[in-house]
Amino acid sequence: MPVTFDQIVAARERIESGVVMTPCAESLVLSETCGCTIFAKLEYLQRTGSFKERGACNALLQLSPEARTRGVIAASAGNHALALAYHGRRLGIPVTVVMPQFAPMIKQSRCVAMGATVVLEGLTIAQSKVKAEALAARPADQGGGQTYIHGFDAPEVIAGQGTIGLEVLDQIHGLDAVVCPIGGGGLIAGVSLAIKTARPQVKIIGVQAEHCPGFAESLKAGKVTTVQAKPTLADGLAVPTIGARSFDIARTRVDRVVTVSEEHLALAILRIVEGEKGVVEGAGAAPLAAFLSGQLSELRGKRVALLHCGGNIDPTVLGRAIGRGLVVDGRMTQFTAIIADRPGGLAELTAAVAAGGACVKQIEHERAFTSADISTVQVLCTVETRDAAHVEELHGLLQGRGIRVIARTQPGACPMPKYT
Amino acid sequence: MPVTFDQIVAARERIESGVVMTPCAESLVLSETCGCTIFAKLEYLQRTGSFKERGACNALLQLSPEARTRGVIAASAGNHALALAYHGRRLGIPVTVVMPQFAPMIKQSRCVAMGATVVLEGLTIAQSKVKAEALAARPADQGGGQTYIHGFDAPEVIAGQGTIGLEVLDQIHGLDAVVCPIGGGGLIAGVSLAIKTARPQVKIIGVQAEHCPGFAESLKAGKVTTVQAKPTLADGLAVPTIGARSFDIARTRVDRVVTVSEEHLALAILRIVEGEKGVVEGAGAAPLAAFLSGQLSELRGKRVALLHCGGNIDPTVLGRAIGRGLVVDGRMTQFTAIIADRPGGLAELTAAVAAGGACVKQIEHERAFTSADISTVQVLCTVETRDAAHVEELHGLLQGRGIRVIARTQPGACPMPKYT
Repeated sequence: MPVTFDQIVAARERIESGVVMTPCAESLVLSETCGCTIFAKLEYLQRTGSFKERGACNALLQLSPEARTRGVIAASAGNHALALAYHGRRLGIPVTVVMPQFAPMIKQSRCVAMGATVVLEGLTIAQSKVKAEALAARPADQGGGQTYIHGFDAPEVIAGQGTIGLEVLDQIHGLDAVVCPIGGGGLIAGVSLAIKTARPQVKIIGVQAEHCPGFAESLKAGKVTTVQAKPTLADGLAVPTIGARSFDIARTRVDRVVTVSEEHLALAILRIVEGEKGVVEGAGAAPLAAFLSGQLSELRGKRVALLHCGGNIDPTVLGRAIGRGLVVDGRMTQFTAIIADRPGGLAELTAAVAAGGACVKQIEHERAFTSADISTVQVLCTVETRDAAHVEELHGLLQGRGIRVIARTQPGACPMPKYT
Repeated sequence: MPVTFDQIVAARERIESGVVMTPCAESLVLSETCGCTIFAKLEYLQRTGSFKERGACNALLQLSPEARTRGVIAASAGNHALALAYHGRRLGIPVTVVMPQFAPMIKQSRCVAMGATVVLEGLTIAQSKVKAEALAARPADQGGGQTYIHGFDAPEVIAGQGTIGLEVLDQIHGLDAVVCPIGGGGLIAGVSLAIKTARPQVKIIGVQAEHCPGFAESLKAGKVTTVQAKPTLADGLAVPTIGARSFDIARTRVDRVVTVSEEHLALAILRIVEGEKGVVEGAGAAPLAAFLSGQLSELRGKRVALLHCGGNIDPTVLGRAIGRGLVVDGRMTQFTAIIADRPGGLAELTAAVAAGGACVKQIEHERAFTSADISTVQVLCTVETRDAAHVEELHGLLQGRGIRVIARTQPGACPMPKYT
């Protein structure tokens, strides 16, 4: 079944009372950072923290009364599961989610807290899906008969996600472009269908994680192509095979697809934490990461919507992403210093760091194993600095005082916003 | 000079085009967490991340043309400095800020980036203030003559902060109470004056850090009383001596003052990151911390505004606060296990942790120094768990397998929101 513009319009009305019309205000900080007028669509303010509620809610509301009673089932480690659990409870529809065994504990327990049945099975979503279909295939009197709701390629789901496109057109006067993350493709399919139908001159730019460029590869091949998904900070984008229906819709409507590195994803998360006081997951940071990577210079001066599609990042992962972002910024740096293994050796090192205006955060002696020279010892230093130039200056100062330094981290080339 | 309600009304009109009328929407997640209807006033969405812009902008706009030319000076390690730097630049007024030497690098460099002159002097704000006054006391032809703008006790500043009170009255229908952080007292003075004048039945509850209870102690003593400020996650609240003018205004208008622990501040930051996808600094988390500490049960079922007053938290401090919050939640735990120092000793421990459904995050051998028993070794384990009950269950399982366990962290007693 193809998806049509009218279905998106109908979905908007259908889900209106169940999902949040999220804000999409101009962001001064991100505008300065990107060199254009940025509007951030805060989909992470949906009740369960992501845009997935739109598609889930739209699908649930179209079930027959019988199907509602039998309930729904899905395979998801994350946002689709939360979205179904929440709207299923709200609408009185039983929800079963099959999660891979590695699914974050917090997402498991939240689904359970919202009344969903959680089944842990498989090492990948694909394996979880096999289990989900097997469960649904059982006779109804043995607990089967649920409707399977695909997380990104079901027509109702694509139409639901498309409502974001209609909203940003209403919210942003004179919109020039939308930058949209691509995982399975449901979001960009819905959004591009909505926007290219209503206002074809608006550019649609898709962003994928370098570690999982399924849509980009499929575009090149002219057909859906499975890629190897390497682990990525943008776990929501780590879909090895994009949806066939989503691909068919989006391939002719997306103007350009770019991929972003893990470094730029981490830096984008940090920029949003510091500049916007917002918490996004890796997928939600991908549009800003595309700007930070310097790939969107054609949008300079334009009016651009970034879809901050979700905020469900594990708190410890958030901490690590922030740390990685600080390293890319040159605001945290790590190096090994080779110092004399005698009284005063460490004092000389730390005095030099202090003289350089940097702040030692952690020191660790690598006493054995690393060197045969017993008169010296290697010290791993984690140090707070101002920026990349300061890191270089500090290395120079240490070398000037006779302390050999081996850099362990390398700042990136992303200037900090001037906040002017 | 006393501050009047009319000055707050005038300030609102005066600063309208320069500051953001921040959102104050109902928060479903926080409402569930607190057991009442919570409206979060997102002052951290001001351009420089805090409410301080209101007072700073109001003060700058009332300078005479001569005073504008000579510029302003202030002592601040943080939000007041950023607020002055931003609005000074916007209005073409030179700004000098004197910061203590320990001021975070990022705040120094942002003030510089916004064109302010930054002077580092003193170990405390009080010492910085002495320097600022000395600089301003120089003759104009030697660079002096600036107007000193006090960060919380200037009448124009108090009136500016009071505009938040007028806004929440407009934004929240049927408001019952406002929960407001107290540092120097300027915010609560302005807000309580605005609200108790316009709608006296609305309760005003002040929140201080346990580590710096200056307002609470002053109330007890009946006069401004200096307290010893211990370091706190809510660095914005660490003001040893509250403002005399602020105290005079607020003492008769505040219904109740509570203090909150560092643990509850950390947990509140985590709850806002996870539930609201928002980034607050310690001071901004204080109102929620007061709820989490169980001290505001009289507000059950009421309509309550929480002033999320700022979001300028150092990214590494944010990471540590999140970590501390996870410990209080029982979602991260640390214990020392005493295991056999022979092949298989660590394998038995890790197998037991896995059997208990917990995930090892870090293992560290404390090989020497700690014990004279050379047949055993102490292993410091950092482990991810589901909640406090899971931590206890895990300890029991390890003991049952003959592994001695010494708890290093203790979960608190704050139930997680059910997300229902």
